[in-house]
Formats: sequence, structure tokens, C-alpha cells
Amino acid sequence: MDRADCLDLDRLDPLAVLRDQFKLEEGLVYLDGNSLGAMPRVTPRRVAELVEREWGRGLIRSWTDAGWLEAPQRLGDKVARLIGAAPGEVTIADSTTVNLHKLIGAGLDLRPGRRVILTEKGTFPNDMYAAGGVVAQLPGTELRVVDRDDLPAALEQEDVAVLLLTHVDYLTGYIHDAAALTEAAHASGVVTLWDLSHSAGAVPVDLGAWGADLATGCTYKYLCGGPGSPAYLYVAAHLQDEARSPLRGWFGHAEPFGFAAEYEPAPGVRRFLAGTPPMLALAGLECALDLWLEVDLGAARRKSMALTDLFIELVQARSPRAEVLSPRDSERRGSQVSLRHAGAEGAMQAMADRGVVGDFRPPDVMRFGFAALYTRFADVWDAVDVLVDVIGAGG
Amino acid sequence: MDRADCLDLDRLDPLAVLRDQFKLEEGLVYLDGNSLGAMPRVTPRRVAELVEREWGRGLIRSWTDAGWLEAPQRLGDKVARLIGAAPGEVTIADSTTVNLHKLIGAGLDLRPGRRVILTEKGTFPNDMYAAGGVVAQLPGTELRVVDRDDLPAALEQEDVAVLLLTHVDYLTGYIHDAAALTEAAHASGVVTLWDLSHSAGAVPVDLGAWGADLATGCTYKYLCGGPGSPAYLYVAAHLQDEARSPLRGWFGHAEPFGFAAEYEPAPGVRRFLAGTPPMLALAGLECALDLWLEVDLGAARRKSMALTDLFIELVQARSPRAEVLSPRDSERRGSQVSLRHAGAEGAMQAMADRGVVGDFRPPDVMRFGFAALYTRFADVWDAVDVLVDVIGAGG
Repeated sequence: MDRADCLDLDRLDPLAVLRDQFKLEEGLVYLDGNSLGAMPRVTPRRVAELVEREWGRGLIRSWTDAGWLEAPQRLGDKVARLIGAAPGEVTIADSTTVNLHKLIGAGLDLRPGRRVILTEKGTFPNDMYAAGGVVAQLPGTELRVVDRDDLPAALEQEDVAVLLLTHVDYLTGYIHDAAALTEAAHASGVVTLWDLSHSAGAVPVDLGAWGADLATGCTYKYLCGGPGSPAYLYVAAHLQDEARSPLRGWFGHAEPFGFAAEYEPAPGVRRFLAGTPPMLALAGLECALDLWLEVDLGAARRKSMALTDLFIELVQARSPRAEVLSPRDSERRGSQVSLRHAGAEGAMQAMADRGVVGDFRPPDVMRFGFAALYTRFADVWDAVDVLVDVIGAGG
Repeated sequence: MDRADCLDLDRLDPLAVLRDQFKLEEGLVYLDGNSLGAMPRVTPRRVAELVEREWGRGLIRSWTDAGWLEAPQRLGDKVARLIGAAPGEVTIADSTTVNLHKLIGAGLDLRPGRRVILTEKGTFPNDMYAAGGVVAQLPGTELRVVDRDDLPAALEQEDVAVLLLTHVDYLTGYIHDAAALTEAAHASGVVTLWDLSHSAGAVPVDLGAWGADLATGCTYKYLCGGPGSPAYLYVAAHLQDEARSPLRGWFGHAEPFGFAAEYEPAPGVRRFLAGTPPMLALAGLECALDLWLEVDLGAARRKSMALTDLFIELVQARSPRAEVLSPRDSERRGSQVSLRHAGAEGAMQAMADRGVVGDFRPPDVMRFGFAALYTRFADVWDAVDVLVDVIGAGG
């Protein structure tokens, strides 16, 4: 295997043409699309259109004339197609963090008498903060944190209301068996809440097939919605009448422009909206989603597995000093590879200085994301080249 | 008084030059800047720069290299100068609605043992929804709604924790005496929470002089941040160590990129951040704030009073059929005038069809906003001209 072989793989890659849809500078090997996705070339034009024409010219009239009012639902339905949800099960709202607060609250509310939020050790810290915030506010509730292997047993305890898990581990890329965990949760009457931030656009997500209850996730990573673009929020159709958002707001009201003093939740998932939708951000997100809807998701997944397999293979062959922290089985691995190395922080900086951008996660993890839409096999080769230079080839 | 007199007033208006800083079509009389402010001409360029250069080229590196990480605090300090707050007392986060949830929760937390949120009848419905959501989640809490005149007496009840009021009434434009109410609240140990959505950029706001505790407000109305631009959130300096956001998230953590499992709130108002800041929206907002910081706020207030005085005078002289719902005393009136008329909804549509855009609020209110930065005295004349045509001149 050498660089020429990688170039051959790129020539044979049916998704290679998609890279031209993104702005990426020559000479940059961008392996941080799992933190902030690259910019679709169409985005500046679409955002400018929203700003100059819809806002600048249409002004307040654009809420009706330019489809702003329906945007959260319209975009939600587009995301739904990427995560195996049905139309009307997804909306776009706020941040993942704020949505976690809503959905944890809703989940507890769906299981009166049960007061425990169950998660695993090492889950994304932000999700623990969100759950901890809910627990601090609601007396008698508890955040129970167990080892991954102990989740099935913990689910059997009768006080568990909500299972909160990130589907793909942010640090290692480990993929949970969501269908099996959902089944186990349901067998014990537990509501499932999935954080899909590292899943959508990276690995197969089929909320319908899993029988998932609640989910949320970030759109600025693999989905390329732009820095801080709003999150999506999913409530299974059969729970929508019963589920209540604790964060009530006028956009979640049955009649936002009725200005009634009494709160009446909107039908469907729209009740989980709170304030006014951020239209600039939604414009940036929508054109990225439109791009995604043209992608063969199966092909993207196959390419992501091939890219990460190749990276692991090259690292092990050329720089065995770095310990591979991600699962070796590509079926259980997200679209990232994490390496453990004592000098990780300095090494990532040194690599970035040489045009290979990944990220560092404390205390000693080098994290590389391989977004299938714009990462080339030659990028994998070049990244390992620089890695070997930076941390050495010795075993 | 005739149209020529209005043109004279425009010629003498020291703020008239500011209109050129906004994109507004010829022939449009835009009196809905209290719902969605006009677009500053500089905004498209600044947003494009963020999208194309900072995101497209800088990618993940822009969090540090382009000042994204500090943006909520940097913009917060700019808003602080518009609302009489000190540096470090304001941040930019989420929507007004989500911030109300945070601050109502924080306010209750600051007064343990007290469980009542006090507000007035007819307050902005969204604020009631937010408070109702908190109450539904926290057993034993109560939303107490009293007539405006009964607020001072209601504040004396010992179970009141938080006084939640919109400073300027969304429907009538009535301005509360915030300093007096704050003093009365503090005399009874009550925490004040002001919704400033119709205040900042419209009427004098001096949180420091009021002795205000907590506040939030919208940036897409008078401040011209763009449709759905994020809100600001204020916590008085002396409360910041003690105040806790119930909506914990990684951007409110002392070390967001430390990824510690334990939550440790950031020092200062930053602890009220939750998820990742929406950078496109913040870019749009920041250039609007920069424009505002060049404005003589006293002159803007004087102009807004003159515009609304003129509108009322002309309506009463030429179309007395419309009842003026807003305070006659300009000192107690925000930058809007509301008229009551049985055919309000149809009339507003008919006016819009003729290029005069205000808005309708149920059941029978015609609402006209007079944003001092871009509304002309001639616009007032033209609006009344069309109003007379639409609803008739009869008394």
C-alpha cells in the first residue's frame, strides 16, 4: 500500500465527486468534520439570499411569504429521512443541550413514579451536565451512572425512567447496539433518549426500526449545517400526544399568533419548539440537508468504514506507538478513529501546523474524523505521513 | 400640519442619516420594527465573511482564531452598554424564551422557601407560558397573575420569590416604572426578572440604576439582529456567584474543553450559556450592535417620542374612529402606538397591500412600531394617510 494506491481508491470512489460540493483549501487535510463539518459551496449563496432578499426586502412578511414559519417542520422532515424517522416526528430547535433538557423532562414525565435517569460512565460530559441540571432542579430524581457492560442489568431496576445515551461515543467512536438496548429498555418500561450528535451523517440511524422514543442531535458536525447550527429533536409519533416539553414557549403553542394567555401545546412534535426560530442558521442548515438528501447513505457508510479501516491499518503498520482507542470492528465504529498517545495535545498542534487538522481530547486522545462526503483516501495517507513524522515510527 | 411639515422635520432630524445604514425599499413604510427590525446594510457582508472566511476557510480553528469562543461575552458587553449594565453582566444565549426558563429557575433558587412567580394580567403570553412550564415541572410553585395596579400589594406577600414583568407592554406600549417596582420588590425580598424585548433600542433602560436582578430580551426587534437572532441575558454582578442556571451545558462549564464528568459552573454570567453558540446569528447580531453603539440613545428616544406623538396627533385629528390604546404620556409609552378598531385585522392587511406594514394583534389591535433609526416623519404622515383611507375619517 502506498500513496498511489490511495489515489487509485479515490479514482474509484463513487462519492469522490461530492468533495467539489464543499469548500476545502488545497493542502489542508481536514479530519475534524466530527467537530465542525466543512462548508457546502452552496451555503453562502443561500444564506445571502435569506439575509438580503427574505429579511432585507421581505422583512416581517417573510414569516409567511418565505416559508419561515414552517421551516422547523420542513427541515425536521428532511432530517427525518436521514435518521429513519417518519414525517412529523422531527423538528429543528435550539441546541442539543437545550433539547436534552426538554426531552429528559418529558421522559421523566412519561414515567410518573420513576425518578432515575440512567446513563453510562464516560458518556459525553455535556449530556451528564444536562441531566445533572434536571436532577438539581427536581427533588427526588437521580442521575445513575453505570459501566457500559452493566447497562442491561441496570435497566431492570424499577425506578429507572429514562435511558440517556450517546449513540456513538464522542471519544472512541464506539457504536451502541441501539436496537438491542431499546428493546431491553422497553422490556423494563424505560423510555430511551438518544443523543445522535456523532451519528447522523456518519453511521446508520434507524429510529423507526429501533423503536426509539426520544432523540436529539447536532447538525454542525457531519451534517455540515454551520457553526452552532440548531439541533434536531425527535419524538416517536405514538408518544407525541402524551409527551410535554417542560420548556414551554410561543412557537410550541397550538396558535403562536393567537396570543392567548393560556398555554395549549401544539399537536405533534412542534410543541417542543420554544422561542423564535433562528432563520439565518436554518437557511445554512437547509441547504446542507438538501445536499445530504442526494447522498446514497449506504455508500457513505461503506466509504467511512473503508477510510477508518485504512487509517487504522496504516497507523498500526507505520506508527504502532499510537494506541488505537476505537473499536477495530468497523461495524461497531463511528466515522472517527481515536489514538491514545502521551503527547497527544502537542502532537495534534504539530500536525495542525503541518495542515492536518484533527482534535485533541483530554487527557491523551488524538481524534480524527473521516467525513465520507469530502475526505479522500489520499488524505488518510497524508495524515498518517505527518503523524509518523510527529510522533515517530517506533513501536 | 401637512406632509411638507413632516419633510421639514426629517430635514432637521439629526438621526436622519442613519436611515441610509439600513436596507429599506422606496415606497415601503415599515412600521413593524418592533416585531422584526430592518436589515443593516453592513449585515450581508459581515455574515458572508463569517460563512466564507471564518467557517469555510478557518473551519474548526475559528473557535480560537476568529474569536468565536468569546463571542457571547463580547456581544454581551456591547448589549450591556445599551441597557445600563456593567461589563461582564450580560451574555448572548439561546432565545428569550429559553432564557426566561433559566432565569425563572435561578430566581426561585435564589429565594428558597418562596415558591411564587408574580406577574401581571396581560403580560406577554409567551412569558406566561415559560413561567407555566416551570410551575408544571416544580411541585409547590405557583404563577400568580394580578392586575397591574395590584402589583405593589402583591409584592408584599411573603411567598413571592420572583417578579416577572415585561418592561414595555407588547400590546399597548405601556412602560413600567422599573426603578419603583424594583425598589418595592427588594423591600419585600423579591427577585426582579425583566423581559426587555420591547425596551432595548426603544426606551431608556438602566438596569444598574434600577438595581435590577435578572433580565433577558430579544435582539431581532429594535436591535436589528436578524430574524430569530439570539437573546441577551443579564445577571447583576452581585448575584453571579450565587445564581445557578437550571439548564446546564458545556458552554456554561468553567472549562468547556476540559470534558470533565463533573459540572462546575463558569464564573460570572457565562454559566448561563448552555449549548454551542450559533455563530451565523451572532455575526448578524454583532454588526447591528456596532451600529447601535454609534447612536446617541437620548436622541433616539427623543425622536421616537416625537414620531409617536405625531402619529397620535394625526390619528386623532384625521381618523378619530380609531381608539388610541397606548399611553398618551410619551414618557410612559414605548416606541409604538396601538390603535383599537373593530376591523383591525382586515385593516392591517389592507394597509400592508398599500405599502404600510404594521401588525395585527388579536382581537382588535392595530400595532405600529416607530424605530427611531430608520423611520421618517414623512412615513408617519403617509401611514396616517393610508389609515384614513382604509378605516375612514369619521368620528
